[in-house]
Amino acid sequence: MNRRLIFNLTGAVLLVESAMMMISFVLSLALHSGDHWPILLSAGITLAFGGGFRLIHPATDYLRARDGFAVVALTWVLVSIFGALPFFLSGVTPNFFDAVFEAASGFTTTGATIFIDVESVPKGLLFWRSFTHWAGGMGVLVLSLAIMPRMGSRTIHLMRAESTGPSAEKLVPRMGNTARILYRIYLVLSVIMFFVLLACGLNWFDAIVHTFGAAGTGGFSNYADSVGHFSAPVQTLIGVFCMIFGVNFAMYYALIRRDFKAIWKNGEWKLYFAIILVATGLIALNIFPQCGRNLSQAIRLAYFQVSSIITTTGYATANFDLWPQLSRVILVLLMLIGSCAGSTAGGLKVTRVEILTKNMLRDIRRTVRPRSVNLIKLDGRTVEEETVSGVMGFFYAYMFVILLSAVLVSIDSFVRDVSFESCLTAVVATVSNIGPGLGEVGPMGSFAHFTNFSKAVLTLDMLVGRLELFPLLMLFSPDAWKK
Amino acid sequence: MNRRLIFNLTGAVLLVESAMMMISFVLSLALHSGDHWPILLSAGITLAFGGGFRLIHPATDYLRARDGFAVVALTWVLVSIFGALPFFLSGVTPNFFDAVFEAASGFTTTGATIFIDVESVPKGLLFWRSFTHWAGGMGVLVLSLAIMPRMGSRTIHLMRAESTGPSAEKLVPRMGNTARILYRIYLVLSVIMFFVLLACGLNWFDAIVHTFGAAGTGGFSNYADSVGHFSAPVQTLIGVFCMIFGVNFAMYYALIRRDFKAIWKNGEWKLYFAIILVATGLIALNIFPQCGRNLSQAIRLAYFQVSSIITTTGYATANFDLWPQLSRVILVLLMLIGSCAGSTAGGLKVTRVEILTKNMLRDIRRTVRPRSVNLIKLDGRTVEEETVSGVMGFFYAYMFVILLSAVLVSIDSFVRDVSFESCLTAVVATVSNIGPGLGEVGPMGSFAHFTNFSKAVLTLDMLVGRLELFPLLMLFSPDAWKK
Repeated sequence: MNRRLIFNLTGAVLLVESAMMMISFVLSLALHSGDHWPILLSAGITLAFGGGFRLIHPATDYLRARDGFAVVALTWVLVSIFGALPFFLSGVTPNFFDAVFEAASGFTTTGATIFIDVESVPKGLLFWRSFTHWAGGMGVLVLSLAIMPRMGSRTIHLMRAESTGPSAEKLVPRMGNTARILYRIYLVLSVIMFFVLLACGLNWFDAIVHTFGAAGTGGFSNYADSVGHFSAPVQTLIGVFCMIFGVNFAMYYALIRRDFKAIWKNGEWKLYFAIILVATGLIALNIFPQCGRNLSQAIRLAYFQVSSIITTTGYATANFDLWPQLSRVILVLLMLIGSCAGSTAGGLKVTRVEILTKNMLRDIRRTVRPRSVNLIKLDGRTVEEETVSGVMGFFYAYMFVILLSAVLVSIDSFVRDVSFESCLTAVVATVSNIGPGLGEVGPMGSFAHFTNFSKAVLTLDMLVGRLELFPLLMLFSPDAWKK
Repeated sequence: MNRRLIFNLTGAVLLVESAMMMISFVLSLALHSGDHWPILLSAGITLAFGGGFRLIHPATDYLRARDGFAVVALTWVLVSIFGALPFFLSGVTPNFFDAVFEAASGFTTTGATIFIDVESVPKGLLFWRSFTHWAGGMGVLVLSLAIMPRMGSRTIHLMRAESTGPSAEKLVPRMGNTARILYRIYLVLSVIMFFVLLACGLNWFDAIVHTFGAAGTGGFSNYADSVGHFSAPVQTLIGVFCMIFGVNFAMYYALIRRDFKAIWKNGEWKLYFAIILVATGLIALNIFPQCGRNLSQAIRLAYFQVSSIITTTGYATANFDLWPQLSRVILVLLMLIGSCAGSTAGGLKVTRVEILTKNMLRDIRRTVRPRSVNLIKLDGRTVEEETVSGVMGFFYAYMFVILLSAVLVSIDSFVRDVSFESCLTAVVATVSNIGPGLGEVGPMGSFAHFTNFSKAVLTLDMLVGRLELFPLLMLFSPDAWKK
């Protein structure tokens, strides 16, 4: 690997992170939240390391695919470690594992928290933590729509992003241009959301925190009762925005280009909305008795939670951990599915689930007619067998990571009581970048009680899930480090 | 499909079932257990239907692959329905869903029970229920080692069975001969176990019930505390026998042929024993404090449970539902993995997990070196990509069935409280043909409290799991029923 170039490029990202910390520092000063010094110190340290890495001059500019993956993986790991500094240096999280967990949870747009009493955290840090969501979301967009497709990633999970891309490819053939367009769409949508929330009467701090949380599909809130803190209309509005950020951003680009045909041909968002509709209906029915038989309230709570969970945001307007089992199981299923490819959301992605299910139906048909030729189609185009195979491999790897992590996290049982559903859903909620799970890690709970070992495992899970497994898993392969 | 031939062949199996009921009838008479009339009546009804089906003369003897699958699927469904008659007609299970559940649990060698007080069930019925295990186990062996490989099943899960089979193929090219050899090995092993248990001081009824349960990797016991009823040495002995029945039967055939090279080359049993060793070690460590810090007891309980669960038998010598979380999570993982292909066990099978994991490691390597050519090898032979792809598709279908069933079973939450772990592990325990799960369906629990709808779903899950998904899923495909 071109190690010098990898460090050089990662250094550039650290410089951006340092600048982000400076913004948080200014804000902290303005708000007199009292956490400005640790934030400034963190910015300084990050600047020093970033600058240092930039001084490592590479022999060549040649970047191979694996170097690219290494940059991506190392970047996310390092921004999480440096991003932990404000939490750690301020003394708010004296345990460095906690600080890294919180920062990784931010940058991976997971939104899982180790804070037990979030409302006591100074505002500068709260802003910083939400800011990491927004930056992480942008990073993911650029990664999944601009960088990955050009690196010939074998899982080709972003097939749909590319399939709307034949025209996009022609119009914006260069990676930098694609990235720039994504930045703008993301920024514009975020600004719209921010002003809509202001117009609804939220103060600017609440508006910005929840805009960052929804845009990055992260889910950090500055209130203990999350989005439940706001009025019913605001809750639903935030739910709608979550849903919007779960759509493939290539759709918004097509919208700008007035390419309605491309949008119409794309089946992913239709399936995505269909899943939201069905899940909302089932859950509303299931929680109807608990909602005092108030149907509109049941639908409202169900819709918000479905939207928040399928987009892997993780905000809550109700303690869904107390809902009846059908609702809880459906929510865990939505955690696994996730939203559209090419969005800021995590999870398997609707497209992958569609390919996998179509392949399964084909296997059943083949049992009936072994010699029949069946091609899997998506948006009218044939999916190559290599893609199908890549997606299937991705699915196994996903489950492998979940099950292995569940075993590792349950090692906690040597020193403390931890329930089966807490272990399992803590892992699902981190690998799929949701945030809250069930039981101990439910929407009103926290990840604080896990041992440091489990916190480290779950932190890795967030990173592995966010980077679609292989780029990060690669770092563990001895092969990657051979000259 | 050749429907006439399908019914004709299924009729033959029903005649065998009727004969099995007659044996149970004779035994019931001899034991004065008072349930002989309903058993005789069941035998008569089954005889009538079986005979009737035999009278349907097919126009041709031509059997296509899908006809074969249909025979296999219909056979298992019908023997379960007719096998339910003794339970139902005797009034022991007034709910026909319960009766079918219990019979399907027997024939699929699952061992999940709806009996809350098994010790009050008459002995004739207890014998019948254990007998279904033994017959089901033999059916699975013949299915997986003699029938499926010749039907060109696309998932080719039994690759290992065939890979030891090149010599076996040459020696016994005909399906009937293979089946006959399997019958004999199965019979001989069962007889050995029976006499060993007798020699250990068990009465002949206990010995036969637990031989049937272990040989079929079923797990029905006539005691409420399962194998925990017996002395420690007997428990361990039964654990060892479970383990023996989880090995690919082609290995025993190779042993008879003194083909030690074939055995040595086969990696599946080594991996299988390695998993048992590691899991036993981890669980023993985890339950050590609960066992009064008695290491030998911890190892004994851990070994028995690991052997019983990985072989998908489901006997218990301790209430593992009360064990600390690490042990419980590991046991659920073992439920998914299952034992060797070509054994009487259920689950994914060690070979499949090995192929899937090797493919994942290859995907990681490919991230590092995209152009490298990597073949997946098993026992020194290259696994074809189509097999890898088939196994990956199988894995998704397996998880799809589990997750969908978990949603369906949790519909119970409309009418009763049911925990997340009970819903999920009830499904895993039935799809993988284990028997007990965690929580409500733990080793000291029962499936009695589920609604009829959930019982029907779980009954289908047992059948779907036992027949390796596709043959049974095929029955739901409209394509299969077209002329």
